[in-house]
Amino acid sequence: MDSIRKMAEKAKAASNALATLASPERKGVLLKIADTLVQRADEITSANVKDVAAAKKKGLSNAMIDRLILDDQRIETMAAGIREIAGQPDPVGEIVRMWTRPNGLQVGKMRIPLGVVGIIYESRPNVTADAAALCIKSGNAVLLRGGSEALESNLAIGRIIQGALKEKGLSENAVQVIPIANREAIFELVQLEDLVDLIIPRGGEGLIRFVVENSKIPVIKHYKGVCHVFVDETADLDMATAICINAKVQRPGVCNAMETLLVHEGIAKAFLPGMVKKFRDLGVEIRGCEKTLALCPGDVVPATEADWPTEYLDLILAVRVVANIDEAISHITTYGSAHTESIVTKDYANAQAFLKRVNSSVVLVNASTRFSDGQQLGLGAEIGISTTKLHAFGPMGAQDLTTTKFIIYGEGQVRPA
Amino acid sequence: MDSIRKMAEKAKAASNALATLASPERKGVLLKIADTLVQRADEITSANVKDVAAAKKKGLSNAMIDRLILDDQRIETMAAGIREIAGQPDPVGEIVRMWTRPNGLQVGKMRIPLGVVGIIYESRPNVTADAAALCIKSGNAVLLRGGSEALESNLAIGRIIQGALKEKGLSENAVQVIPIANREAIFELVQLEDLVDLIIPRGGEGLIRFVVENSKIPVIKHYKGVCHVFVDETADLDMATAICINAKVQRPGVCNAMETLLVHEGIAKAFLPGMVKKFRDLGVEIRGCEKTLALCPGDVVPATEADWPTEYLDLILAVRVVANIDEAISHITTYGSAHTESIVTKDYANAQAFLKRVNSSVVLVNASTRFSDGQQLGLGAEIGISTTKLHAFGPMGAQDLTTTKFIIYGEGQVRPA
Repeated sequence: MDSIRKMAEKAKAASNALATLASPERKGVLLKIADTLVQRADEITSANVKDVAAAKKKGLSNAMIDRLILDDQRIETMAAGIREIAGQPDPVGEIVRMWTRPNGLQVGKMRIPLGVVGIIYESRPNVTADAAALCIKSGNAVLLRGGSEALESNLAIGRIIQGALKEKGLSENAVQVIPIANREAIFELVQLEDLVDLIIPRGGEGLIRFVVENSKIPVIKHYKGVCHVFVDETADLDMATAICINAKVQRPGVCNAMETLLVHEGIAKAFLPGMVKKFRDLGVEIRGCEKTLALCPGDVVPATEADWPTEYLDLILAVRVVANIDEAISHITTYGSAHTESIVTKDYANAQAFLKRVNSSVVLVNASTRFSDGQQLGLGAEIGISTTKLHAFGPMGAQDLTTTKFIIYGEGQVRPA
Repeated sequence: MDSIRKMAEKAKAASNALATLASPERKGVLLKIADTLVQRADEITSANVKDVAAAKKKGLSNAMIDRLILDDQRIETMAAGIREIAGQPDPVGEIVRMWTRPNGLQVGKMRIPLGVVGIIYESRPNVTADAAALCIKSGNAVLLRGGSEALESNLAIGRIIQGALKEKGLSENAVQVIPIANREAIFELVQLEDLVDLIIPRGGEGLIRFVVENSKIPVIKHYKGVCHVFVDETADLDMATAICINAKVQRPGVCNAMETLLVHEGIAKAFLPGMVKKFRDLGVEIRGCEKTLALCPGDVVPATEADWPTEYLDLILAVRVVANIDEAISHITTYGSAHTESIVTKDYANAQAFLKRVNSSVVLVNASTRFSDGQQLGLGAEIGISTTKLHAFGPMGAQDLTTTKFIIYGEGQVRPA
């Protein structure tokens, strides 16, 4: 077996060919991968059966086992996702802008791949196919290190993708699944500063902190989503209700679900009792500030300081009544995670102030926080969400796996002293 | 004295006010800083005298002492630089692009500051003023940790900038000079992942490696510039000569100077003997491949494998004759540092191929590598040059100290299941 360094060296060598692939070729490779995954679905499902059996033996929860399972239907969905990525505009080679200097030099910025990307993730094996497709789309070679539970499935998907690459005359080293699923493998990978250009960890906070603390390579990370909705004094009550229900209840276990509801005190009496009643009917536990408790007696348990920065990922909601937009923004700045925040308002100035002053990765007016997603925002499939500001901030698509170089057209110019 | 963590906490608090400053106010602060530096020049020069005396006592080289000296003229130049930064377009709040989703959501990306930037640098005290001005321009608070030789000068400049901030009603914590100039202070600073958003080290490779190895915060770094000029078979000989001389001789000690000259074998006989003669007259030592040695006997010493990846920063040049553009690009990929490369050619296809296939941060056709500089490319003053691809690649201006957030204008949209 190759060492991880050796795998990274091969990935780097493969990345050059990938970077200079013409757009239709890149598309052809992705379509070929999608077709091959469906044709060789049996290989994936029989590898997956082993993973699932081992997971059951280890006593993993039903939810975790469900995430692990790959059947023909799910493989078809995986292939459809890759076909969609294939159809999106090609980021590589795009000239972002161009300007002319007083000395006649034409200066432009052209998108190029990063080179080699390392993706470190936990249980879901479909990430293997998704991440590989996004990296190929953006011209990058990729090293994939998935969780131990899904190792057999990941290796099978990797083999099939490599087969498709080979059939298209490309190096199979462009997509490699690391066959070791322990922390040492991660540690070794994140030391390879000279070979790997970016590390994206996807998973629990423990995994991400381990990567950040040990990596010599830049890391794009996503710790948590403590998302807020602020219902302003002038909000349309029906709109606010619909947005709050969508943001909290539609899928409470994801990072763009609302965790804290802030309500302007001028509308709290008209809005909160009905809203809280609806949430209770939907099975949501409400943890409120004193004013919320007073307005909705019997339906609310008292919130403590520990509730404000908490990402419940569950049917629990913290609620606070605030004096005005300043107090709302100050609460978000103090307790938020810079992920996604929304204001519901009819007031033009407050809408603009919220958009300008809240520096989270996604800031919305009169829309659900659930739109904070690469697909929903029109980026195509999502490689991750960044809650730090370097390189990318918020949902990331294939374009965010590129950088820009300066290209300069001259006519013999030299620099004066 | 405050701990470094305490300083960073204060910087973070100050950064919020800075981020929401209107454009004219931000400009006003910068102009005030420029004026105050000139008005209080005596404070700077008398602090500087102490630094220079200590440096002489320590036996630092004349070149290092020259870099350290601040007189009225240099302070005036520093102020002029800040006035220029003040006059440039404001990156903060710029809406980079905007699109509409099928459900009517208007989605845009707006530039915002990163938050708190840490700059770690070595001897030149003018970096203190430059870096502070670029950070204010981009709405960031900054922690400045300069070299021990310039500590008194840096502290004086910092005090004056803080005075100007205060007079403009801003928190003086937006610009803080760390008063400890040892490695422990750097180590402490680069652990503060929760408070500092970006670290930019500027200086020797040892300093930069120390920062990269210890930082939990993203680092934008610049290791070295092994820049190439490729003189193609069809090059205009006069143009090639002028570009090569400018790239090598105008300022050999900087990172965008040419270190290796690659020459197409079809033009080597017509070009190299005369070119090498000119270089010899200008005091440049030539280290050549065998073909170069054969063409210019007596003027060239043999190059070894160790010459190709070397950044001389001196009047030394490696020269290699290559078979064609493929071999030139392959040499650059193998030995280069992804900094800056130029092709001199009359051939349209080769010009385009070089621009597309060479993935260095700056790629030029028919122009000197010396244009690889923020000022020369029209970015305004330069905060640094990145030779890694994350966040920024190549020369960085104030705009590169920002990120973009998504802003979304809705009309009550919620996400369907």
